Amino acid sequence: MRFPFTGASSVLLFSGDVPNGPGPNFLQHAGADIDGAILVWTRTGKTLVTSKMNALKAERLFGGRVLAVDWKDMGPTLKRLAPRGKVGLDLRHLRAERYVRLCKLLGAGRVMDAGGQLDDLRRVKSAGQIGKIAKAVKISKDILDSIELKPSMTELDVVRQLAIECAERNVSFAFPPIVAAGENAREPHHEPAAKKLGYGIVLIDFGAQWQHFNADLSRCYFLGPAKEEKKKYEEAKEIHDSILDEMPSLHTGGELARFADRQCKKKGWGRMLHAIGHGLGLEVHDPPHLGLQSKDKLQEGVVLAIEPGWYGKKFGVRYENDVAWGKKKARLL
Amino acid sequence: MRFPFTGASSVLLFSGDVPNGPGPNFLQHAGADIDGAILVWTRTGKTLVTSKMNALKAERLFGGRVLAVDWKDMGPTLKRLAPRGKVGLDLRHLRAERYVRLCKLLGAGRVMDAGGQLDDLRRVKSAGQIGKIAKAVKISKDILDSIELKPSMTELDVVRQLAIECAERNVSFAFPPIVAAGENAREPHHEPAAKKLGYGIVLIDFGAQWQHFNADLSRCYFLGPAKEEKKKYEEAKEIHDSILDEMPSLHTGGELARFADRQCKKKGWGRMLHAIGHGLGLEVHDPPHLGLQSKDKLQEGVVLAIEPGWYGKKFGVRYENDVAWGKKKARLL
Repeated sequence: MRFPFTGASSVLLFSGDVPNGPGPNFLQHAGADIDGAILVWTRTGKTLVTSKMNALKAERLFGGRVLAVDWKDMGPTLKRLAPRGKVGLDLRHLRAERYVRLCKLLGAGRVMDAGGQLDDLRRVKSAGQIGKIAKAVKISKDILDSIELKPSMTELDVVRQLAIECAERNVSFAFPPIVAAGENAREPHHEPAAKKLGYGIVLIDFGAQWQHFNADLSRCYFLGPAKEEKKKYEEAKEIHDSILDEMPSLHTGGELARFADRQCKKKGWGRMLHAIGHGLGLEVHDPPHLGLQSKDKLQEGVVLAIEPGWYGKKFGVRYENDVAWGKKKARLL
Repeated sequence: MRFPFTGASSVLLFSGDVPNGPGPNFLQHAGADIDGAILVWTRTGKTLVTSKMNALKAERLFGGRVLAVDWKDMGPTLKRLAPRGKVGLDLRHLRAERYVRLCKLLGAGRVMDAGGQLDDLRRVKSAGQIGKIAKAVKISKDILDSIELKPSMTELDVVRQLAIECAERNVSFAFPPIVAAGENAREPHHEPAAKKLGYGIVLIDFGAQWQHFNADLSRCYFLGPAKEEKKKYEEAKEIHDSILDEMPSLHTGGELARFADRQCKKKGWGRMLHAIGHGLGLEVHDPPHLGLQSKDKLQEGVVLAIEPGWYGKKFGVRYENDVAWGKKKARLL
């Protein structure tokens, strides 16, 4: 890949700056989860700098050049590899402590935020990445299918069951799952509690993470007649389907959001409490952005979570699927 | 608690800057995991600033004053609450992106790193906190006891079993567990692989996290005679026990480390590949530091993981327990 950045002569990405694994941009460009490593990317290519202790593993996991140095030589090494011009950093996934040290090392004037450019490089996924998201979605659907809801279970019982099913399949949560029974489903981000499911609606918003890629699904289940709830859920599904049908003619995040907005209005829903969806990938909220004003481009390789939701006075519903943008139409994952 | 900082007139702690939950210093001083909140701490007390959406939850979870503001008013609000003097930040648990914004808002000259002071405030635990660590340790021991190792299992099978046992008990991993069979146990930080356990030694380094507090235990198991391995493991236990016995007379992290060093030499071990242990609490590596030169004070309320380990050419062993420093002696958790 050619050096894709504007304004920077080099970009530095740190693997160790987000707890529980490297940030999405390190993963994207180093291609693997490599402890205690720094990716230095310049016009002449990528170099992975690491300690002597981690060098063997780094060479095994990283395709390109690996440079093993003592930690005490790390500063001079970075200065030598990025000798001039602006140095792009990923400020959203970098600790302030390290940022301050880098400003001292390189000079504050040489440092710039390349986070927006880095995020945009993750907007279009490769076939291999879409395959991983599809696998995460498949596992997530299997898990949802395996859960047997009973009125006597609490929301937290369901969360525990989801955790067990994830552990058995060697995957982790993409995000803390939402399980919301009855009135609790009015709140889009309800935190599961010791409340019994009872005989109404149960909303589950859940996704597994597989090889760092995330799924994000929402389903409603009905433990009693719940006629009104079922009707609203059908409306959510219809809005969802109409968005997928229209996708080939929607070219930006904003166009998609405004189309969804009109579909909601047609059902008498009013404006939704949250965006109609979001990009999906190494982060649960990946580019592109689907706000009403978003100019983020939709094109082949974009992966979206589409999640129409309605929140009333007695209950709420949400239906959410993950969709890959193909050449001619949207493909449900 | 009086305002305990030197050099700062106020301290700002952000709940949302570490993925998967707030950082340890926010948890320590806000007392709870509260989404999208900022703790402003000055000589006149603590104020929790949050959005209107999160205000109800914040009031329920936070003991003190809660101020609900629109996000667009957040900057002026912070300036008003911390009107003069240095503003202490926790640079190790703060995103660089937010740090840059705060420097612009407050003036770069007003910002200082209070991370070291904040960390030191976590060195001595309250009785309630020690109780939570003890609970995490108890759950971890139960889980280790429940695992039945067989020679045909792989290291990854054991990790999956640990994950299932955690999920069933509503706890998460404190850190990715280490399961190392035979030669793999030579490496202190071995990454579990699809390697069968076979008939030798199996080293497991594992801990559960309960209500944000961590446990950290290491045990060796023997699936065959493994005579040499058992002998080394007994030596590790003896070194561990001698450290616990000596604890009342050791007053700093360095004193403890140097005493442990002498015990290892007595067994003919040579210098260990890693420190003899570390503080334990909201972080797996909490204060105090137990390096050979550490001046961190050991006193009542300090909680330590003590982990003598030996790493040879054919195998390695490690024995690790968690210990609370009492008035007169160390208490095994």
